[in-house]
Amino acid sequence: MGDLNLAIRKNRTANVTVTISYQGLPVAHQEIIIKQKNHKFLFGSSWSESTLSLVNGELSGKDKELAELLNERFLFLFNQVTLPFYWARFEPQCGQPQTQRILNAAHWYVDHGCVVKGHPLCWHTLTPEWLLSMNNQEILQAQFDRIQRDVSDFAGLIDQWDVVNEAVIMPIFDRYDNGITRLCRDLGRIKLIRTMFDTARSINPKATLLLNDFDVSPAYDILIEGCLAAGVQIDVIGIQTHMHQGYWGTERTQRVLERFERFNLPIHLTENSIVSGHLMPPEIIDLNDYQVSEWPSTADGEQRQAQEVVLHYKTLLAHPFVQAITWWDLSDGRWLNAPAGLLRKDHSRKPAYDELSKLIKGEWWLSPTRMKTDASGKSVFNGFLGEYELLLEHQKFTFSVQEKGETSISIIL
Amino acid sequence: MGDLNLAIRKNRTANVTVTISYQGLPVAHQEIIIKQKNHKFLFGSSWSESTLSLVNGELSGKDKELAELLNERFLFLFNQVTLPFYWARFEPQCGQPQTQRILNAAHWYVDHGCVVKGHPLCWHTLTPEWLLSMNNQEILQAQFDRIQRDVSDFAGLIDQWDVVNEAVIMPIFDRYDNGITRLCRDLGRIKLIRTMFDTARSINPKATLLLNDFDVSPAYDILIEGCLAAGVQIDVIGIQTHMHQGYWGTERTQRVLERFERFNLPIHLTENSIVSGHLMPPEIIDLNDYQVSEWPSTADGEQRQAQEVVLHYKTLLAHPFVQAITWWDLSDGRWLNAPAGLLRKDHSRKPAYDELSKLIKGEWWLSPTRMKTDASGKSVFNGFLGEYELLLEHQKFTFSVQEKGETSISIIL
Repeated sequence: MGDLNLAIRKNRTANVTVTISYQGLPVAHQEIIIKQKNHKFLFGSSWSESTLSLVNGELSGKDKELAELLNERFLFLFNQVTLPFYWARFEPQCGQPQTQRILNAAHWYVDHGCVVKGHPLCWHTLTPEWLLSMNNQEILQAQFDRIQRDVSDFAGLIDQWDVVNEAVIMPIFDRYDNGITRLCRDLGRIKLIRTMFDTARSINPKATLLLNDFDVSPAYDILIEGCLAAGVQIDVIGIQTHMHQGYWGTERTQRVLERFERFNLPIHLTENSIVSGHLMPPEIIDLNDYQVSEWPSTADGEQRQAQEVVLHYKTLLAHPFVQAITWWDLSDGRWLNAPAGLLRKDHSRKPAYDELSKLIKGEWWLSPTRMKTDASGKSVFNGFLGEYELLLEHQKFTFSVQEKGETSISIIL
Repeated sequence: MGDLNLAIRKNRTANVTVTISYQGLPVAHQEIIIKQKNHKFLFGSSWSESTLSLVNGELSGKDKELAELLNERFLFLFNQVTLPFYWARFEPQCGQPQTQRILNAAHWYVDHGCVVKGHPLCWHTLTPEWLLSMNNQEILQAQFDRIQRDVSDFAGLIDQWDVVNEAVIMPIFDRYDNGITRLCRDLGRIKLIRTMFDTARSINPKATLLLNDFDVSPAYDILIEGCLAAGVQIDVIGIQTHMHQGYWGTERTQRVLERFERFNLPIHLTENSIVSGHLMPPEIIDLNDYQVSEWPSTADGEQRQAQEVVLHYKTLLAHPFVQAITWWDLSDGRWLNAPAGLLRKDHSRKPAYDELSKLIKGEWWLSPTRMKTDASGKSVFNGFLGEYELLLEHQKFTFSVQEKGETSISIIL
């Protein structure tokens, strides 16, 4: 753990020298307060259904209070959210997308300081039924149209997309017929990925485009190598971890990360789950096969989960290529009905939430700190990369620390 | 089985109309004999050590007789051989390759009508120790030199090469340090494959170049897709089957073949083993870990093996993309000391050898057949693609049947 903490400080912090001057002269021996406003690192979570309802004015009474509590706990910890664009749900009737409802949510998250990611643009799961009556050329056109419409509608609010999800399994997925598996069988993985990335980028050239997969076998890194060798521009490698069958541990996590280091690309851990109840049996291959009506969170499980969450976040922060971690989901009882939340179903805090708070808003965070400039107007502090605010009497200045190591900030009154 | 037999006849045979004429007139009502001389399909096996010794004049007495028996049984069944170019054995001392010994063997096989394949040019196993003292640039140069030397020395005799072997596992292989894993980690799989293929092709542009792997997971087909998308010219997809842990069966074999169909490339089943003794335990991952001093062939096992070998060959012949099957090894007690031979250690025939003979030189073969031309000088027969000989009184003509379906051959006396 000591090694991880050292690596985190090395990779995630800067020694910041703030110099304050007034009319060319140092502001010496001046009391100031510096406090952190945001992390550069993206600490994210998946959307909450109740948040979608709340921001669309669909809630009242107890439900509204609960949703507000959840939002408060979301915003305390996170600065990134993943919003759902599952095609079957986003556009259940061809030509009738629920754009406005998700736009309202995107606005709300952006207004509250969050980076918003759209997930996913092309995936073989949760595809609309109405694709099935089309031929492959029509499916491809519908997929193009969908990407063009949604990337365009959300540009500026959503500039980060999981473009293709789970391409490794996409063409061999055989649980049920669907339009995208058909398409991927036809085009092959690389051509499909190239096509979808090119389409998304043409609409929003500023967007950060991810390839995302749960497969962390050599198949995935070979696929990335193939895409890059073929000239497909992938901005970020997305890796899911969904550890319902048990936490990977530091060593396995590091081995997985090592596999992708050679591409010299940022890595986002896009979907992370650790349960605070019993583990899903190891013989389950497709996690979706595990259907339970009850999957309780237990006191012991919550203790274990808290330790594992801390180790997981530290392991990931310690790796210089990792830029984002998205927790899946914030509260219990969402995907797979799993106790994978940092909050229980009633949104009460589990130990994992509190331990993560101690890191994200504690050990890795600069709370308001009183300092004094020296004779040359300088103050020095060590802090995590992100946004900062400096208070000098009644004046407020903001600055950004983006690069690790030694950084100088100059403030002119 | 009926379906397989039908598919085999459909994909592997032609209806041949032979027309014989003399000075522009049909040779009518003429008795002729037609017989098959060779298969177009490549029925191969790995080399035998005793053959290498024999053709290099190293054997005498009983050993020589045994080697001759083995050769006779090899040549009765097979028209292709894989010769060993394992770098550590081929060039144990840097700069002292055993070229002449293998050249003598290549000559012998070619003189006896066999297509010869070299195996492999680049592999992380059986690499010479002397690579370990080099840096990666020097290893790459040594690998270039090796390919250039060997492909050049054997051109005309060996025009078929397993260029890169087992690239899927190559960079993550961690059982022991070796020069090629280092190189592959450095270059990545696709760049390594491209480099080795380009080098081999530049020396022998006529050569058929294979990528070969035992990994039949999506990782391998994604690797091939990546290579092709990056413009690497792979002539043939090589698939190993080594079924020491049990015969795959028709369905799994067909599923594996289906995975590679979309590339529209010929497929060679490069290394096939089915044991006639107990099966290797399923928990073994790397087959090389199973080290036994005795692994007997049993009567029951030989019956089972014979049935499985027949089904395996029929399944493969039935698939139109498959162009070659190489048995590994002809006699028991070679790789892994396994009873995977079609012959026992004393080179006596197992049922599998006899059953395979009944196919390759029986059901799939035109033995000398007496026919009579009709009034227009024509004879019609259905035969497997390959080389044929026609006898007309004391004259002998040869012809080749290369395309399935309807074919016409014209013989002018």
